[in-house]
Order: sequence, then structure tokens, then C-alpha cells
Amino acid sequence: MKCYVRKINYYETDQMKVVHHSNYFRYFEEARTFFLEELGFPYAKLEEEQLISPVVQISCRYKKPVLYGETVHILVRLVKLSGVRCRFVYEVADEETGELRAVGSSEHCFIDGTGKIIAMNRSCPEFFEVFRKEVEPYDEERLK
Amino acid sequence: MKCYVRKINYYETDQMKVVHHSNYFRYFEEARTFFLEELGFPYAKLEEEQLISPVVQISCRYKKPVLYGETVHILVRLVKLSGVRCRFVYEVADEETGELRAVGSSEHCFIDGTGKIIAMNRSCPEFFEVFRKEVEPYDEERLK
Amino acid sequence: MKCYVRKINYYETDQMKVVHHSNYFRYFEEARTFFLEELGFPYAKLEEEQLISPVVQISCRYKKPVLYGETVHILVRLVKLSGVRCRFVYEVADEETGELRAVGSSEHCFIDGTGKIIAMNRSCPEFFEVFRKEVEPYDEERLK
Amino acid sequence: MKCYVRKINYYETDQMKVVHHSNYFRYFEEARTFFLEELGFPYAKLEEEQLISPVVQISCRYKKPVLYGETVHILVRLVKLSGVRCRFVYEVADEETGELRAVGSSEHCFIDGTGKIIAMNRSCPEFFEVFRKEVEPYDEERLK
Repeated sequence: MKCYVRKINYYETDQMKVVHHSNYFRYFEEARTFFLEELGFPYAKLEEEQLISPVVQISCRYKKPVLYGETVHILVRLVKLSGVRCRFVYEVADEETGELRAVGSSEHCFIDGTGKIIAMNRSCPEFFEVFRKEVEPYDEERLK
Repeated sequence: MKCYVRKINYYETDQMKVVHHSNYFRYFEEARTFFLEELGFPYAKLEEEQLISPVVQISCRYKKPVLYGETVHILVRLVKLSGVRCRFVYEVADEETGELRAVGSSEHCFIDGTGKIIAMNRSCPEFFEVFRKEVEPYDEERLK
Repeated sequence: MKCYVRKINYYETDQMKVVHHSNYFRYFEEARTFFLEELGFPYAKLEEEQLISPVVQISCRYKKPVLYGETVHILVRLVKLSGVRCRFVYEVADEETGELRAVGSSEHCFIDGTGKIIAMNRSCPEFFEVFRKEVEPYDEERLK
Repeated sequence: MKCYVRKINYYETDQMKVVHHSNYFRYFEEARTFFLEELGFPYAKLEEEQLISPVVQISCRYKKPVLYGETVHILVRLVKLSGVRCRFVYEVADEETGELRAVGSSEHCFIDGTGKIIAMNRSCPEFFEVFRKEVEPYDEERLK
């Protein structure tokens, strides 16, 4: 589990005066990137080495709007990992109150530079080992 | 069910040379807007009349990337409706081949201009009646 | 000169309840794409044939906000063209009233797939000829 | 002059494998926000107090692409200020090499919550005094 801190930008709001729901998926991506970086494997480097990790499925449940002027903490957890798939969950909470604003999850596969699906444990065993140690259980009921 | 036709924009791609996954949620929003407009209730007007419909939950499963230069058909269906909630599903398919690229769903509640949750069947009965006729069954297995 | 018609999307607004200023540059891109398509040279195809046209300079002057629920007409004109550069201007006007909302311009160079600057009149003479016929004078005072 | 540090996000790239040109205007907005915050006047607070500052004109000149995996320094300067207008310039440089990637400028007016243009020196004299001290000369030739 890592905690990614994110200030809200003006251009991320919509005329409901809240962060537009599509932007949470961009925050999730930033949180994943932060997670990988903290492990010593920046995604930019992984991609250069032909380990690309497209999103297969993604979802978000919105509890309470996030506003401009706020900063959120995004707790990102790796909750599943096999050689060919991984799954993250995200909890977005207000920095000051800790109040939960949204929860989400994403599933990813691994492909190489040509788009071919690969077994990441074989093609990047070093990264796989580090990554595997991060897997933690998560009560999926929290996503509902 | 309505079919919303959408050309892909260059700025919607990312360096994987495909549409960034977050943009599908923007396409879904456009498809919903189109759906309402086809019913004679443009969302801009509904919002003026204090019927606002925030996203409570949203998800997408990606089957095959969508590329710049392509046009997709987004089939949007209203699959559930009560006075306080509704649910849409979306199927994104290639215009030429009909090949399925992604499927998704969204759930919405209804609030007024002050943010208070409202029973839409009571506050906008005229719209509710029209809307209700659009509800159709959907095999949720298709979303998996 | 071509006229590109564009409906405003909800997610393009910000909490000032107007289209966020950065989105105009996305509309300009769509308008250019439309322009090329109308000439029979879709940008996706040009790019496949290794004619890439990055933005070198771009600007916009905002006269009056554009709102959700509105549709704008974007008049796009090619105003300068040499083998190595071209320049477009854009006028964004309300569909119903014709009222001018914004004016802008962009300059582009031409590169190939490796990033090398190319003389487009030599590498794509067929396109250059068609393109050249579109050049029209424009009073740059209108941009101020 | 303030220096805003910004890591590039994956979703900000396009299929040219560089940051899409429209995103620079979002970085500029973040840099302005940072500037105001450093002065002790976060924009969210100014807006609450009915001092809104829309963009009247904005431009950017692109020198060299910014890539995913990079971090840029955005030098933001207030170069003009009157009661009714202000002007910022921005220099985007690579964090490691200091190489200039882009330069831009923006002009802003001041309006209140109802959209009426206001003289900011009169409506927010305290802020105006602090803001005024930040004005510095800038050689506009650098923007060409």
C-alpha cells in the first residue's frame, strides 16, 4: 500500500463545481505510477523495456464529490497478481478529515512493444519478485 | 436503445497509440446526453430545471483498443429505473466491422440545484414517464 | 475556408460554468482535422504516410464564454503555406446568433516518422497542390 | 517569479509520444495557481471571495517536445498589472538539463461572481498590493 497525495486542479472541475468523474481514472493512473516508482520501477522505464500494462477493466464508486481547493490522499493497493494479470484498488480520501470520497479498482494485463500478451513473471522476473511482495488482501465489499 | 456515433479525436490518444481508457467515460457521457436529447429532454435543459444526475458508479471493460482515424458506434441502453436511481449500459463497437471494443455501465442518482437527493418521478413526472418507456432488459453477463 | 460544427460536451466545462479555455485548442485540432478530411486527406492517413504536422505556435483570444448546451461553428482558414510551414486561423461563433466567441491561430511544421523536418511540397506534392489552393488572405487584425 | 515543478502524466501524451500541445495551457494554469498560493492567496479562496480571473488571451510556442517520464520546471512571472488586467509569462524547461521546451503568456481580467468586470485594485486592495510587488520586466522577444 502506498499513499499518493494529489492537489485538485481547476481544469478538472465541471459546471457541477466538483471534479468530473472521468478524472478519477486519471488520478488512479497517477497513483499506480507513484506506486511503481516507489518500488524502484518507474513506468516510463518499464515501457522502454517493452513491459506495457494496459487497463483491462476499471471502475469507480463515488461517495462524495471532491472540490477544487482540496487535496486528496489516494491509497493504492496491489490486491492480486499472477504472471498475466494484476489488480489494484484505490481509496480516495480527504486529506484533512480522512473522509472517504471514492473507491475504485483496475485490472491490467501485460503486453510487449508489439502488443503480444506476455507472462510478466518470465519476461521481467526481477520486477515480478518485487511486485509480488506488495500484494495484500483487500475486502472487496468495500468497493460496493 | 440509441446509437451514438463518435469519431475519435487525436488528443484522445496516448503514447500507446490508442484512445486513453479514461476517455471512454467521456464518450459514455456524450452517449447519455444523446440519449436524453433523442427523447426530447436535453440534459442542459434538465439541469436548468434543477434535475441534476451525478454518476454514482461507473465501469468499463476494454476488449480491443480504439484507434485514431476510427469511428465507433456506442449503443446506450437504459436498463434500470426507479424514482431515485437509473442505470445505463454501453457497448462500443467499430463502425465498419461491428467488432465490440468495450462495454460499460453507469449508475446515477438525481439531485436538485442545492445538492439534495430527489425522487425524480415526483419532481419531474413528465420526464419520468418518457424515460420509463425506454427501460429494456439487459444480460449483465455481457459486461464481464 | 471550412465550417466545422461542434456541440459542447459537459466534461468540457469547468466550475466557472463555461468551457475551459484549454479545450478551445482541442476544438481547433478537430477543425483542422475536418478541414483536411474535406480536402480528401484525412490526417490519420497523412500520418500513416509519415507526414506529421506538429504545432509550433498556437494562441486564442476569448471574447465571450461558450456554455454547455450550445453548439458553435468554427470557421477554419488556411492563411499561409510554404513547403515547411503552414498557418491556420479559427473563428468560433455561436450557431444561432453568429456572435463571435473566440479567435485563434496555429502554426505548424512538417516532420516525418523519425522526427526529421521535411519540405512537404517535395515529400507530398499531391497533397501540397490541393492544400495550396485553399490558402486565403486574412486580416490578422481580427485576432487582436 | 516562481518555479513550479511538474511531473508529466501518461494520460497527457498523445500518439506522437509527446505531451499534447493543449496540456501546456493546463500546466500554465497550475503554475499560476502555485504562484498565487506562494503569495498567500490561493485561487480557491479568491474565487470564494468573488474575485474570478478568466483568461482573455493565451498563447504558447513549442520549442522541443516534452515526454512522459520527464519532469519540467515552469518559471512563471507576472509581467504586467493594472487594476483591470494582468499578464503572466511562462517558460517550460527540462528539470535536468534546463533546456527550454516552450514559452507562453496569458492575459486575464477580473470579474465578480455575477460576471461583472471589476477593478481588482479597489475590490481587493490587500491582494493587489502583494500582487503588485511581484511584477517584473520581461523581454517579450523571448516569446518569439
